[in-house]
Amino acid sequence: MAQLALLDKVRIVLCGTSHPGNIGAAARAMKTMGLDALYLVEPKRFPDPEAEAMATRATDVLRRAVVCDSLDQALAGTVFAVACTARSRDLSHALLTAREGGLRLIEEATRGAVALVFGPEKFGLTGQQVNRCSVIATVPANPSYSSLNLAAAVQVFCYELRLAAEGIESFPQETFEPASYEEAELFFQHLEQTLYDIDFLDPKQPKRLMQRLRRLFQRARLEREEVNILRGILAAAQKGRPPNS
Amino acid sequence: MAQLALLDKVRIVLCGTSHPGNIGAAARAMKTMGLDALYLVEPKRFPDPEAEAMATRATDVLRRAVVCDSLDQALAGTVFAVACTARSRDLSHALLTAREGGLRLIEEATRGAVALVFGPEKFGLTGQQVNRCSVIATVPANPSYSSLNLAAAVQVFCYELRLAAEGIESFPQETFEPASYEEAELFFQHLEQTLYDIDFLDPKQPKRLMQRLRRLFQRARLEREEVNILRGILAAAQKGRPPNS
Repeated sequence: MAQLALLDKVRIVLCGTSHPGNIGAAARAMKTMGLDALYLVEPKRFPDPEAEAMATRATDVLRRAVVCDSLDQALAGTVFAVACTARSRDLSHALLTAREGGLRLIEEATRGAVALVFGPEKFGLTGQQVNRCSVIATVPANPSYSSLNLAAAVQVFCYELRLAAEGIESFPQETFEPASYEEAELFFQHLEQTLYDIDFLDPKQPKRLMQRLRRLFQRARLEREEVNILRGILAAAQKGRPPNS
Repeated sequence: MAQLALLDKVRIVLCGTSHPGNIGAAARAMKTMGLDALYLVEPKRFPDPEAEAMATRATDVLRRAVVCDSLDQALAGTVFAVACTARSRDLSHALLTAREGGLRLIEEATRGAVALVFGPEKFGLTGQQVNRCSVIATVPANPSYSSLNLAAAVQVFCYELRLAAEGIESFPQETFEPASYEEAELFFQHLEQTLYDIDFLDPKQPKRLMQRLRRLFQRARLEREEVNILRGILAAAQKGRPPNS
């Protein structure tokens, strides 16, 4: 879908990151979700071999990363910015979930560049930095331990961005050839006859058992090839047994 | 909310993890989302100071982690398991998104213990391990680079589990008693032996057929009573046939 191109409009902005490994892991998280515009505001150490190591095959994202002196610089040219925080810190901003934040960013990206802003590992964004953003978003978390690793938070938000851009809710299921009604019925007849032949089914009380077995196989939605396999098994089980009736 | 208690029924199973740092980061990811049952199948190095360091304040999850010799052991007592893979590898299972997987696990957790299974960093789960699970789930990703870091994948799935647990509004209507993992595996063993005994299965080429049959019955979600009926049928089919091997 064309909307995946909107992911190119989303900047991931990391402010004051302490550990270069987290920058690398964030780059990897971004690339797996199809994002690649990384902005680093006053990183403590960058570039750095630890960042490269954690990025694995996303080192191209690191190489193109834009290092900035200030959040203002990183947000220049954007039309909308979301501040990611572990908790709501004041009443001044609308608080969105990560899911809502992803949807909102993709919607705003139709109008121009947008940004998703993360603070330093230990302290998060300052109030001043949050005030530079349009809304706050947070990942719903365990109230007694809500501190996601920085790269893990980037992963969750980028995941929501991708889902929002794809607009899909589930994968197209594998196409298979279902057994026709008649094929399924012939299988059930064959099954019933075989259960007589191997002396499993009591001819005086067959109904309930067949009903249970029908329920099981109906639930599975039998495929044509499966019916062929199952009938092959039934034929093998019948072999050498005198037919009952 | 009472449904959050369902998170206690979910085991996170990491198979053959190479890097202890990933185990620690996974523990942190779990705890931020309110999960704490970690199972480690043949970890390369555990316990390990790197795991502790990456877990930060989730070291309690590491201390309670259950180290297992096999996936069978980790799945013992579960009624439903989801295999997490980076890609769909064969036609054998239904493929869910992470979101659908989270919803499904929480739904099944109303019936008993459930598991979310991850493979080693480099290679993912083997086909044999995937076959031990009921369905496959994957995080929708960039097709040209879909390799999420292990702990990042755990974070996304645990996030979806939390959302599912928070958001569930009503329990599934139909109550039934699902077969446990062990009961289902004993049925599959019995089925395979019977197919040898009735000369249906070629001992030189058994794999593909058993995989197809597993797929069919996994899809149906076997109930305990159904397993009893099916094994009764198998025993009747074996009667009077010399056992093959």
